[in-house]
Amino acid sequence: MPSKLEGAMDALITVFHNYSGSEGDKYKLSKGELKELLDSELTDFLTSQKDPMLVEKIMHDLDSNKDNEVDFNEFVVLVAALTVACNDFFQEQQRKRSKDEKKGK
Amino acid sequence: MPSKLEGAMDALITVFHNYSGSEGDKYKLSKGELKELLDSELTDFLTSQKDPMLVEKIMHDLDSNKDNEVDFNEFVVLVAALTVACNDFFQEQQRKRSKDEKKGK
Repeated sequence: MPSKLEGAMDALITVFHNYSGSEGDKYKLSKGELKELLDSELTDFLTSQKDPMLVEKIMHDLDSNKDNEVDFNEFVVLVAALTVACNDFFQEQQRKRSKDEKKGK
Repeated sequence: MPSKLEGAMDALITVFHNYSGSEGDKYKLSKGELKELLDSELTDFLTSQKDPMLVEKIMHDLDSNKDNEVDFNEFVVLVAALTVACNDFFQEQQRKRSKDEKKGK
């Protein structure tokens, strides 16, 4: 039985390969595959963003070796950045709450 | 219902805070908390490593701002590096298998 952390690592690998295998290099996301992954797996994040060029921008930022595809290492950088942003938000909320509790609100 | 990817991101945040809250700064892992997290969440990885100084070394490598604690950003770097290593192994196995299949093994 894998731990919660092992399960999360496994999910990252599985999700990537669920989309990277559709076309071209099996182990890399083309722009179409990246868009499909973001659409299906991060729907709320994408719909909250109004920028029609978002996928192009993400692709451009992630594709550090400029081969027009996103490999697993580049994908993990995206997930790490998003998770850190979520955690910052979460910690900020927690801090506010404990401040309010001290004030007896 | 969160997607598989959202679930994984949520798990990373939850696991970190399950351990970081025990002592000292609630939002950072002390050396003791890091050891507990690694022991419980990455048991197989730790037991396969024979180096008794491993936790000290990981702590030293991760703690980029040298405050003797590991914050969430530093923790995500560890998880990303381990996941990339797992994925490299997985892809290598896949490549070997498809090579063998072509050979008709």
